[in-house]
This record gives sequence, structure tokens and C-alpha cells, in this order.
Amino acid sequence: MENSFGRLFTITSFGESHGRCVGVIVDGCPAGLIITEEDIQREVDKRKPGVGTITTRRVEEDKVEVLSGIFNGHTTGAPICLLIWNKDVDSSEYEKIRFLPRPGHADYTAFMKHGGFNDFRGGGRFSGRITATFVMAGAIAKKLLSLINIEVLAHTIEIGGIKAKPKGFEEIRKNVWGNPVRCADLKAAEEMTRVIEKVKKEGDSIGGIIEGIALNVPVGLGEPVFDTLEGELAKALFAIPAIKGIEFGSGFSAAGKRGSENNDPFTIRNGEIVTVTNNAGGILGGISNGMPIVVRVAVKPTSSIARSQETVNMESMESSSLVVGGRHDTCIVPRAVVVVKSMMAVTLCDFAMRAGLIPEVIK
Amino acid sequence: MENSFGRLFTITSFGESHGRCVGVIVDGCPAGLIITEEDIQREVDKRKPGVGTITTRRVEEDKVEVLSGIFNGHTTGAPICLLIWNKDVDSSEYEKIRFLPRPGHADYTAFMKHGGFNDFRGGGRFSGRITATFVMAGAIAKKLLSLINIEVLAHTIEIGGIKAKPKGFEEIRKNVWGNPVRCADLKAAEEMTRVIEKVKKEGDSIGGIIEGIALNVPVGLGEPVFDTLEGELAKALFAIPAIKGIEFGSGFSAAGKRGSENNDPFTIRNGEIVTVTNNAGGILGGISNGMPIVVRVAVKPTSSIARSQETVNMESMESSSLVVGGRHDTCIVPRAVVVVKSMMAVTLCDFAMRAGLIPEVIK
Amino acid sequence: MENSFGRLFTITSFGESHGRCVGVIVDGCPAGLIITEEDIQREVDKRKPGVGTITTRRVEEDKVEVLSGIFNGHTTGAPICLLIWNKDVDSSEYEKIRFLPRPGHADYTAFMKHGGFNDFRGGGRFSGRITATFVMAGAIAKKLLSLINIEVLAHTIEIGGIKAKPKGFEEIRKNVWGNPVRCADLKAAEEMTRVIEKVKKEGDSIGGIIEGIALNVPVGLGEPVFDTLEGELAKALFAIPAIKGIEFGSGFSAAGKRGSENNDPFTIRNGEIVTVTNNAGGILGGISNGMPIVVRVAVKPTSSIARSQETVNMESMESSSLVVGGRHDTCIVPRAVVVVKSMMAVTLCDFAMRAGLIPEVIK
Amino acid sequence: MENSFGRLFTITSFGESHGRCVGVIVDGCPAGLIITEEDIQREVDKRKPGVGTITTRRVEEDKVEVLSGIFNGHTTGAPICLLIWNKDVDSSEYEKIRFLPRPGHADYTAFMKHGGFNDFRGGGRFSGRITATFVMAGAIAKKLLSLINIEVLAHTIEIGGIKAKPKGFEEIRKNVWGNPVRCADLKAAEEMTRVIEKVKKEGDSIGGIIEGIALNVPVGLGEPVFDTLEGELAKALFAIPAIKGIEFGSGFSAAGKRGSENNDPFTIRNGEIVTVTNNAGGILGGISNGMPIVVRVAVKPTSSIARSQETVNMESMESSSLVVGGRHDTCIVPRAVVVVKSMMAVTLCDFAMRAGLIPEVIK
Repeated sequence: MENSFGRLFTITSFGESHGRCVGVIVDGCPAGLIITEEDIQREVDKRKPGVGTITTRRVEEDKVEVLSGIFNGHTTGAPICLLIWNKDVDSSEYEKIRFLPRPGHADYTAFMKHGGFNDFRGGGRFSGRITATFVMAGAIAKKLLSLINIEVLAHTIEIGGIKAKPKGFEEIRKNVWGNPVRCADLKAAEEMTRVIEKVKKEGDSIGGIIEGIALNVPVGLGEPVFDTLEGELAKALFAIPAIKGIEFGSGFSAAGKRGSENNDPFTIRNGEIVTVTNNAGGILGGISNGMPIVVRVAVKPTSSIARSQETVNMESMESSSLVVGGRHDTCIVPRAVVVVKSMMAVTLCDFAMRAGLIPEVIK
Repeated sequence: MENSFGRLFTITSFGESHGRCVGVIVDGCPAGLIITEEDIQREVDKRKPGVGTITTRRVEEDKVEVLSGIFNGHTTGAPICLLIWNKDVDSSEYEKIRFLPRPGHADYTAFMKHGGFNDFRGGGRFSGRITATFVMAGAIAKKLLSLINIEVLAHTIEIGGIKAKPKGFEEIRKNVWGNPVRCADLKAAEEMTRVIEKVKKEGDSIGGIIEGIALNVPVGLGEPVFDTLEGELAKALFAIPAIKGIEFGSGFSAAGKRGSENNDPFTIRNGEIVTVTNNAGGILGGISNGMPIVVRVAVKPTSSIARSQETVNMESMESSSLVVGGRHDTCIVPRAVVVVKSMMAVTLCDFAMRAGLIPEVIK
Repeated sequence: MENSFGRLFTITSFGESHGRCVGVIVDGCPAGLIITEEDIQREVDKRKPGVGTITTRRVEEDKVEVLSGIFNGHTTGAPICLLIWNKDVDSSEYEKIRFLPRPGHADYTAFMKHGGFNDFRGGGRFSGRITATFVMAGAIAKKLLSLINIEVLAHTIEIGGIKAKPKGFEEIRKNVWGNPVRCADLKAAEEMTRVIEKVKKEGDSIGGIIEGIALNVPVGLGEPVFDTLEGELAKALFAIPAIKGIEFGSGFSAAGKRGSENNDPFTIRNGEIVTVTNNAGGILGGISNGMPIVVRVAVKPTSSIARSQETVNMESMESSSLVVGGRHDTCIVPRAVVVVKSMMAVTLCDFAMRAGLIPEVIK
Repeated sequence: MENSFGRLFTITSFGESHGRCVGVIVDGCPAGLIITEEDIQREVDKRKPGVGTITTRRVEEDKVEVLSGIFNGHTTGAPICLLIWNKDVDSSEYEKIRFLPRPGHADYTAFMKHGGFNDFRGGGRFSGRITATFVMAGAIAKKLLSLINIEVLAHTIEIGGIKAKPKGFEEIRKNVWGNPVRCADLKAAEEMTRVIEKVKKEGDSIGGIIEGIALNVPVGLGEPVFDTLEGELAKALFAIPAIKGIEFGSGFSAAGKRGSENNDPFTIRNGEIVTVTNNAGGILGGISNGMPIVVRVAVKPTSSIARSQETVNMESMESSSLVVGGRHDTCIVPRAVVVVKSMMAVTLCDFAMRAGLIPEVIK
């Protein structure tokens, strides 16, 4: 069940980049949830950075289809199969480099693990395109979480060294999907866009940092000692290609702090226990403490670059070089924002169900 | 199964800090492995920073007992139960602060999640003491991995802002367990020790960073798309209290790099495909690529400090303050080093079994 | 993951009787297995009792499509999605009886469990049609098992009180798929056919017993103490609607035997340890002992009958009666034979993989 | 996780017959359940047929100890470890027959599966003694189920061909634990006792049938399509050594019935939908329908008999014979009654938790 995630709200991803389709099964979704193909399509469209701002020309692509589990506008309690057919794509480029693993990509490990039988076209099962299946599942999770007022946000906070200024939740909600880099700080967004264009011209690529935030998470989600909120969120987020680091709350900076600085004092606000600061990122002992869940992930620079790179021929075992052709994102951070949000929603939905917060039937 | 981890090599932890014992069940261990209580004791003793250097006075504590699964010096294929009896401890201190959650600790979330029925004494199930169960399981994993030449190292690379100089594997092997801070850079180790002493005098605490390294991991461990090597290692390591961040290879620094810098070119060395650099930390597409697995975790400063802290009384719902009494580690980084190593071993052992590298019976 | 089965060779079923499709994801299949849509189609066609004997007119229906995981004629190691589109069907009959649960069917429990949101058309998720997804997965399992010489047979041994005479494996192989009731005893098969026709005329239905046999299963499959061979096979087979009993070897008759009769003495044949008799059905302590695995399942009479039956209106909570319209099998035993075979194959394949008998890559 | 069972209420069994102990971890039990060692002891004592009737001399044996998870008389939400220390036993008898597998026992399969490293003394991990761990877990499940009024009964209905007359629930409750064969029909109980004594004198053994009944199970427990109530109960019950068959409701007899006889008509009683008959054994489509769950299991005759049996020497690979020494139950059916009840309770408890009927915290 390597391709499945979640204990009670379980998603199973399938499909390849240049195969017939990419799809996902959502098993364990309560019956009675009102959901439409449009609800899911709207999330999937957010993987396309241009949409809603610069251009909408690709909206017709990646059309979501519901194959099972939704009937008369409601979920039925049966597994929900969601699918996107792949358009006919030219895979000839990949035939040429079949034995030349692209540095930074999974070509070499996939070839070795699957004995050369892997579908290598477009990265096959390891393509970023697979994250569209995460987003489809996330759209359902989002709807379920909205029933208990949990909201998940995500935004770009750094690209190519340009850091966004901290912004409030309202600005994040308002600004993120309206600019191509998914950044709430519109001024930084412009700079990031310029950096991306510059790096693109140089035939290179860049990475960045995405922050995810979950609001109104009640106290008590997460399970000691192994199914911690941090552990499951990390596992969910490392399923996104290119993510190489994750931190919660003060994260790596906590390593250099004193306990007296990093501990979040408790206080009472509006009759409820809260913490004055949120260095814990909303998680104590692996369990949500009622404060916003704050997570940041490091996205490495896109592995595909338009420059010649050193590699080897896996068949002849000789040194070689290759230039990765085709159109590639200079920076995949913007595309990954909705994916981070989706995997957070899937994880929190699973924990909410474990905690009995979402019933078997929605009425 | 919140207290279980691993698909084929499965560990189940139990016990509380001030209860009768802490223990672990290791299920799925092949039959025929030669292992003794001493093999396990040796690893457990590494959780005590003083051992082997400053003092050995606590060696008699934490004695490992084998309750099942080992017979005539070999594992039998049946579940292995390993246990450490807790010594009689004075829990009166904890009775006093039962309703006063210590900032940074899981007292508040445990109380809320378990409706106040949690064993609060000494942190109960959320105590660092629980990691002794991880180390016992790790000792078995270590033995299994040694059969296929996989070796796991871990060392402190930063404490309280003091960074260790990069050291080779040989120095790490030689130096780590001989100094109280588990650092391979002996000069830095001295500075770290001094910082810890200074902070201790101030009644405060500090955190740091631990690096884990796995050597000789064959190409192909890790499963797309959810059971990635990064994802499972992260889940395993976030089970260690106080860890708030994790990164692989170039990790967070990759966010600021160009693809042309961060991609690891392939080349051939001694007839085998290797990468020239190791920014990927030995993992591509969630699968090991044959290079050393390199992971770093951020450890927050110990939550228990000898200063007055703001908190609330969960019963009366009034503001309060507390001073955490008793003896506490100023820095838990040194203790956590063997725990990081152990959880890495457990995770890699599970993946090695999934890949069929370790047979059902060791001959 | 209620719709998933298997630890390493995992199948996830989806789809409804009158929805768009029925399908299955096979996750964990090794890469490199040569398999075609025809291999799978051939098994699926065996669910249609008429095929190969009385008529082949329905062969064009239930066409299997591969959506992912197979590339250039080989499995790739990625999840395999297999799907059958449903033909346009008239569901109006079901609209009428939406609130009138059919006795013996899951209409009532499905309605209650899913709050009336279940897709009730044609039994929805509880239809026998779902077993087509088991057969598709079984076709892949069969191919994998053939690599290690394991063969699974199934045949009807009783219908409507008519018992088949015991037949050898060769006769079972030869005769089963050539007669409409899937019985190796051709004389009994004729009688069974006559009984079915008679009962059909009476507007009633009948049940029967199917025997499954697995040959060349090596010693050692099955895991103590919960994942026993009997336990997992039972779980797999009870997923088939209408199965209400299961027994292994001498089964229920063992309850009336003496130990001296029922124990299978060990002896040596051709240098190998075997048992003289096989009352154990090839399983001792939940583990295969090298003898043929023998299992029998009781199939209840088809719940749909052409007679008026007592029921209640779930909406008005009044007594009612209903006559189930449409075309129904008088006896579903013949259709279930290939399904029993398929679920046995899936289960054994999973155990063979756990035992390391099938590698990650088929070469 | 072969030694674990249950998705949310998970039990993990460990220990061997002649090792240090047998034990179980119960993970997922809600916090706040009031439970004492006596509650658990009382169930474990029911495994000793003599207790309460003929003799109580063995009451001091098999003393249950709580090692974790219970604090101040309540469960804490942490894993509960329950353990019984083994008394010093003489294993010399087993040393002698180490290479002579006892017919009907798991000696041969255990030896082969675990490469001869298995703890063979007293059957090791395959001993009936392991079922004491199921009973300890069942005692906790029983307490949880009592909170939602679910009651589980079990009783012997056949031994050595003697069949008990059907009895009402009240008689079962009243009579079962007061007679050594655990039969509600006291007249049949006497006959069964006589048969057991007769067979014992002949140096032979006999089997029988146990019926389990669950009352007040609400509609809706059980999950389509694989985690059916029948499937999970079957898996749970096949973990009990010596069980070789299982049936629900009319079970195997349904194979010979007509649909018009076997279908249970629906009607309304006291404002609730019920079925007039209960051929379904309380389960439709794998889901409870509100009627009593009725399951019957076939127990084979005890494999250990006091007669010479044919076997082989696994070391020398020569034919041999053996007489199993020591004290053995002529019929293990009476001992197994509480085990059947316990495993049913464990399974239903898990399903009740999946259905959200038991909260995370008991108040």
C-alpha cells in the first residue's frame, strides 16, 4: 500500500505522466457530503500558476471526472474514484534519453528499483503531474474539514532568496491565488516573478519555501507516539517531489534558542486556554494545541534545467552528458502551493476522523 | 496502532515514565538472528551521556530484559518483547502541578486529549524516557542491518549555536560515544559542554542539531509515492519528543540554490554509478540512490527550565505560574543522538525487509 | 481502507453496479511481469456461466481496460488500475423499490449505514457485479503465482442438494469451465442444471458449495498468530456476497471425529515430508504444510426471487411486500467459482510476497 | 504486524508457552474506562474448565498483571500491557521430541517456517496458552462494549457428536460457566462430560462446535467490501488454534435451502425494523442488521493423544513414531468457549470504534 495514505480517510494514487490517466481513490469518506466535479476542478486548476491572472488558456486541460462514489450530488460512503485523462503527448524526447538519467530526477532510482520496466516517459510515476491526484483528494478533504470549520492555507514565503514579509491570514486568503507565484506579499511576489524570469533566461532553475497553515484545529488531533501530527504531516508532504525539508513552528531556528525564549507560555483568552506565542507551530507532544498549525517546507530547485549536465549511460555504463529538452517550470514552488494545502487537508481530515469529529454520515 | 511503526519490521512501544516499566514489542524480526541482552543494553546505555566518560555511576539503571522471542541465543520468529522496569520514583512533585501545564511540554494536550485520565507523572507517555523503547528496538534493527552491511551513524553537529566542523565517517565512529555531547569534532564538543554548563547556571536550556547518516544503503530502498524514504524517516524521527524540523541532503539550503548547483551529476566510480555530490542526501524520488543517506533534525531547547514560567490552572481556569522542579537535562541533544540512530535503523530495516534484502530466516 | 485487501499485494476495489464503472487498483505487483488485457479478460469471462458452452453472446460485454501500471507489455511496479465500464442500464425498477429493502440483500443495512445516501441502483456497491473487480485482480495474482508453480483451482461440489463425486485435479482442470455449473463431475453437473431450471420455474432460488484448491504451495505461507492462512483466506472469501460459511480440510466434520482419525500422520515421500491424509486442508498452525490447500465455502441461495416477499417501507415505516423484478440468476454458485479462485490467488500471492518468494522485479 | 489485530482497537499478542510469559498490548482503548485487574482475571479464569464447579485448585495460576496504560483505576489512553508470568515448567519432554513433529500440531510448519529456531517447548508460540492473551484483551473489549449495551455470549453446542438443545439467552447466561463443558443445556452437558471421560480412557480426543452470539449490536457495524463483519470475525476466530470451520446464521445449511426459506422477511416490531427469522445471523452485506450476530465454529479434536502416532524425524529424515506425553485436554472445546467470546468482543469493539460509537474519552 505504498500508494495509499491515511488510516480512516485513505487516498490511493495511480497513473503516470504519459500513460492514459492520473487518478485517485478516496476511501473512507463519509456519506452525505455535498460535492461536485466543479469543487474538485477548482482546486486542480490552482496547480496552474497562470490561471486567474495572466492567462486562462489552459483551463480546459486536466478535466476532473468522477468515476464512482458520488451519486445525486452526495458522496455515498463507497470509494470515490477521481480521474484526469492525459492528453496525447509526445514521448519521443524521453525515448532518446531512456538510459541517461537526468540529475536530480528519479530516473536512476526508478530504473534500478523497477529493473528498467518503469514507465520512464515524462518521469512516469515520479512526475510532478502525480500531485494532481493529491489535489483531487484534497478537494474532498477540504469540504469535510469545512464542516468543522478547519481551514487550510498555503502560500509561498521564499523564492530564489526573495523572502515575503509576514502577512495576516486575511491577506493570505485574498492574495495568494491572484498572483502567479502564490505569494501573499504582493511586492515580494513581483520580485519573485522577476527572479524566475531572470533564472529562466540563464537556463537554470530555483527553489523556495512554502508555508502551510491550518486554522481552527481543535485541541487533541494527533496520536502519540508514532502517529504524531508532525510525523504524519511530514510523511504526507514528503510525497510531493522536490520537497527536502520540513519544520514546524520555530523549527530549525529553535535549535539556537533558549528554552525561556522558545517555550510558549499559556494564558487564558476569551475563556479558553491559548499560548501567548506559537513557537510550537500548534503542536505539543505530537498533538494539536488549538493554536494555528504552522509548517514550512523547503522546495529544491527544479531538476530539469536547460543546460548540459553530466550523467552516465546506464546501458553502456559510460559517462555522458544531456540537455533536458521540452518545456519545464523554472520554479515549481508556485505549482506546489495548492499541493501542500491539499496534503495538509488530507492529513488533518484523517486525524479529525480518528478523533470522531466527522461522523459516518453527514446530515 | 498509533503506538506501532513499520510495515514488516514493526515496533510497538508501551509504558510510562513513572509507571511500572517501559517496553517494546518487535514483530516481524526474522528467525535465527544471534542477539543477546548485552547487545541491546549497550545501545540503551548510550542514552546516558555520562557513560564512558565523566561517570558510569548510572550504568546499573535501565536494565534491559528480554521477555519473549529470543530462545537459545537466537530470535525465534515470534514477537520480541523487551522491557525496562522503572525504579521507584518520587512522583509527588507532579501531583502538585497536575493542573498546571508546563510550557513546551505535552501536559496540556495530553490532558485535553485524554480527558484528564492521562498518567501525568513525569510526563507519562510523553516523557523522553519512552525513547528508551526506540533504542531497544533499534538495537535489533542494527544487528539485522549489519548482515547486509548497512551502518547507521549519528552525531551532534550543533548545540546552542556552536557548530561542529564537518568530520569524516571514521572520526564520527571513533569520537561520538566518547564525549558527553556526542560530537565528532572534539574541539566543538568542549565548547558545547561549556555552553551547556553556562546555560544551566542561568536556569535555562538550549537545543541543537543532530545529523544521521546511513552508509552502504543499496539503491532501491523506499517506495513511491507515499512510503518514501524521506517520509518514513521523518515520521520515525518526529516520534522523538523535541524534534521540530528535519531535512535531507542540502535541505532548507536548497531553497536558495540554483538547479545547476543543487543537482548531483552522475558519474562512474569503480564500475558503479554514483553522484559526484550528495545534495540529495542519498534519496531521489523517495528512493535510496546508493549514496550515504544524510538527514538532520532540529532539537528544540529542553522545555523544563529552572525559571518561573507563565501558565494557567486547567481546573480553576486562572492564570498561574510555575517553576519546574527536579533534575532536568539542560540540553537533551546528547541523549537524543542514539535515539536518532535507532529510529533510522528501524526505518531502514523495515525498508530492507520490504525490498526482500533480509530473508525470513537468518542462517 | 475497507475497500483494500492484502498487505504487500494490495487490491483496492471501487465502482457500483449501475454507476459508470467497476474497477480495481493492484498495488505492490512486482515490475517485469508479462501480462496482457487478454489474460485478464479471459478470467473475467469465466464469471459468465454460459461462455464456452451454451452461448458466447455476452462475450463482448465486460471489457477489461488497463488504465495504468502496465507499459510495453510488462508491469512497471506502479499501481495497476483495471476497469470495466458499465453499459447503460435501466435503473427505473430500483427507483420504485428504493425504500423497500429486498429480504436477504444489503439494501436495509446499506441504507442505514450510509444514511440513505448509498447508490441503491442494482445493489450499488453491494452487487455481485463488484466481484468482477476481484477477478481482474485475481488474474494478475494467478500470473505471479504461476512463476512459483502455485496453481489455484475451484469447482462447484454441491448445488441444491446435488453433491458432486470427488474428482482428481486433472478432471477439475479439464471439466470445470466447460459446463455451465462449473462442476468437475459432469453427471452431477447435468443434475444440477436440471435442478436450477426446476427451481427457476418455481420462481425460487438455490445455493450450493464451492471448493477451492491450491496446489504446490510451499511449506511456510501464513503468519502466526492473527494473519493465519485460514484467517486471511476467510476474510478474502467472505468479501464475496452470499458466502455464509467456510471450512478447511475436514472442517465441520472434524467436530465429530476423534483425534486418532483426524490427525494427519507424517511420512516421507520422494525425500520430502508429507502427510498421509489431508484433514488439515494443507494448513497447520495457520501455516501451509506443503499439502494441497483445501477450502469449501457455503453459498446461500440467491436473495432475489420472483415471488412476493414481506418487507417494510423504510420511509413510511409500514409493512409492505415486494416482488423483485428483472432478470436474476436462480443460483449464483456457478458465477462465484472463478471469484473464489481469484480471491484465493490474491491471498496466496500476498503471502508468497511476504515470504519473499516473489521478487520486486521479475526477470 | 502478524501478531496484531484490529484497526482502531488493536491488540498485539506476544509470549510463548514455556517462555517467561504470555502477554498482550491493547492499543487504542479510550481513556477513562474503569477497569481492574480483577475484571481481567475473571475472564482469564474462565479458560479453566474446572473453576467454579469441580475444583478451584488452579485459581492461583495465570495471574494477570497490568504493566501499563491503567492509572488510578482508569485507562489512560496509552497502550495497555497485560501479562501473565509462566510458572517454571519442565520442558525436558519437548527436548526429546524436538525433531519429531506431532501430527495435527504446528511443530512441522513452525520448524520449517522459522528454520528450526522456533521455541518448540510446549508448542511455543503455537500453544493454546497464547489464547490467554486474547482473553485478557477481550476483557477490556467486553467492558467497552457494555457501555453501549452490546453483550457477547458463547457456549458449547456440540461435543463428540452430542448436540445441545437450543436454549434462550437467559439460560446461556445462567448455565454456561457453571458446568465444565460450558454448555447451556445441562442434560447435554452431562452427556458431553461422560463422552469426554470415555474418550480420555481410550487415549483419544474429540472436537466439537461452539456458538457465539452478540446481542444489541446496532445496525451498521461492518465495512464493505473487504472489512466485512463476517470476514473480520472469521479472521479473529481462526487465530484460535484448532478452529477449522466457521459459519454465520444458517451457514452451511443455507447451501441446501431455497431462497424463499432462507431470506429473512422484514417486519416492524416496537417501531423498529427487524427480520422475522435470522438466517442471516445478524449480518447482511457484511454489515450488522440489528438482529443477534450468530456464529458457529468447528473445533477439531485435540491433536495431542495418548496413542502412538506415525511421524518422521525432521533431522534424520526417517520414519518414526511418537507418543505425546504429559497432561493434555481430551477436548479443548470447553477452554475455547471464553476465547471465542473474547475474540468476538475484540472484533466488535473495533467495529464500534470505527463507527464512532465509542468516544476517545469515557466520561
